[in-house]
Amino acid sequence: MTIGKSYDEIQVGESASFSKTIVESDVYLFAGISGDLNPAHLNEEYARKTFFKKRIAHGLIAVSLISTVLGNKLPGPGTIWISLSVKFFAPVFFSDTITATVEVIEKMEDKKRVRFKAWCKNQDEKIVLESEGIVSPKKQ
Amino acid sequence: MTIGKSYDEIQVGESASFSKTIVESDVYLFAGISGDLNPAHLNEEYARKTFFKKRIAHGLIAVSLISTVLGNKLPGPGTIWISLSVKFFAPVFFSDTITATVEVIEKMEDKKRVRFKAWCKNQDEKIVLESEGIVSPKKQ
Amino acid sequence: MTIGKSYDEIQVGESASFSKTIVESDVYLFAGISGDLNPAHLNEEYARKTFFKKRIAHGLIAVSLISTVLGNKLPGPGTIWISLSVKFFAPVFFSDTITATVEVIEKMEDKKRVRFKAWCKNQDEKIVLESEGIVSPKKQ
Amino acid sequence: MTIGKSYDEIQVGESASFSKTIVESDVYLFAGISGDLNPAHLNEEYARKTFFKKRIAHGLIAVSLISTVLGNKLPGPGTIWISLSVKFFAPVFFSDTITATVEVIEKMEDKKRVRFKAWCKNQDEKIVLESEGIVSPKKQ
Repeated sequence: MTIGKSYDEIQVGESASFSKTIVESDVYLFAGISGDLNPAHLNEEYARKTFFKKRIAHGLIAVSLISTVLGNKLPGPGTIWISLSVKFFAPVFFSDTITATVEVIEKMEDKKRVRFKAWCKNQDEKIVLESEGIVSPKKQ
Repeated sequence: MTIGKSYDEIQVGESASFSKTIVESDVYLFAGISGDLNPAHLNEEYARKTFFKKRIAHGLIAVSLISTVLGNKLPGPGTIWISLSVKFFAPVFFSDTITATVEVIEKMEDKKRVRFKAWCKNQDEKIVLESEGIVSPKKQ
Repeated sequence: MTIGKSYDEIQVGESASFSKTIVESDVYLFAGISGDLNPAHLNEEYARKTFFKKRIAHGLIAVSLISTVLGNKLPGPGTIWISLSVKFFAPVFFSDTITATVEVIEKMEDKKRVRFKAWCKNQDEKIVLESEGIVSPKKQ
Repeated sequence: MTIGKSYDEIQVGESASFSKTIVESDVYLFAGISGDLNPAHLNEEYARKTFFKKRIAHGLIAVSLISTVLGNKLPGPGTIWISLSVKFFAPVFFSDTITATVEVIEKMEDKKRVRFKAWCKNQDEKIVLESEGIVSPKKQ
């Protein structure tokens, strides 16, 4: 069974990324999971009249790519999320390719937790969101 | 077209909720949208040996119910998310019924934004997560 | 209850087909089911720089259309797959219409099984893959 | 951009695995993607009267976990599948936890391809299927 890095194996400054093109079906499935039916995401007629001029993805879909880096790569399988904060800077449009990067910024000795910063960029290198958080790596 | 409350219509202290039973297929679809394959979510054999003893939902699925309150009810359709912070206190197990509640705690006059606190409880009234954030209601 | 052809009803040389336009949401859902996050399938920016110049479907999605012919038509409902081999010749692009054809090439008397060959073509009659395999038709 | 191992970086004897609990929604979504409506997968009343006594997953869902190891880990992102063969030995039941393992068995110098063998086991260490195939790792 592959599991992620333990607290001791993690280095401050380490980073990992995951990239994905966010598509219409991601947004529609996320709407079904969450129940968030905001017309900004699901209604092209409505969206046409907004500041952004077209439908945008739910902000949490971009945040979820951070979860993917944490759960698949750094620390990896078995990681538990303790807290996060996010600032949204730009919308994700359908068919944008988003890269989420996580960087370890502190090892918290008392509870063997790890503080990270993270950010998502789109295909034009524009920052979509910035985040910070704490995770508990898998106890080996 | 139904749209949400404008900045002027929103009162500090107002609140709204949304409840949903989070099921296995929600978790599996979210794994597909995000790419987060953490065995804590997708591998029952692995999960059996963890502290929680069984698979748990991705934390962001509970967070997404807050997005649902914001996007459907308060402020409602057209809301744009500016920032959020979340502290996770307890896991969401498959078939837990989660209620997300959002309460307006401040009106931010300069940019016509609204600060809220939010929390998710399970069917046993246990707090799953607490959150705080800022949104921009639809400009009428 | 409709069931498929029995061993005795099947003729060597018989064939059946199934066609479907493979779309983006098929690929994204398959990524979720399998966990296969290969950027060749999910990342348009990455794919642009590959030999194929754009995202391609998972090869097994085309193979699955053979499963569909076997399970729906020939032999039909109740068929159990014993073995298969596949050679991939060309990629399936999003929105390609793929036709899978199965042809019976041998009846295997001892275990009452059927050997077939199969192939998938795209809308330009280009061979996408060739396959051969053995199935056990429903025992009546 | 994270990409997989190049031909030169791969060693004969190297292996990697991926595990997942295969659930009902995986089978139902796969039925939608493929169109394979075999009642062995989708009809509990029918399945009750079969040799296996209950619904079983599509065989290709287990095969897809091999695709996941190839596309995510070994060789990893960018891998293209050239050929495969599969022998199915045992059914996958709903809620079985399947582990797919890929092992490199030959480096094919002329076209810089890699031959692998692979197998899927369930939670009781029972072999579900065995496979062999050839992939082309990402050209760096």
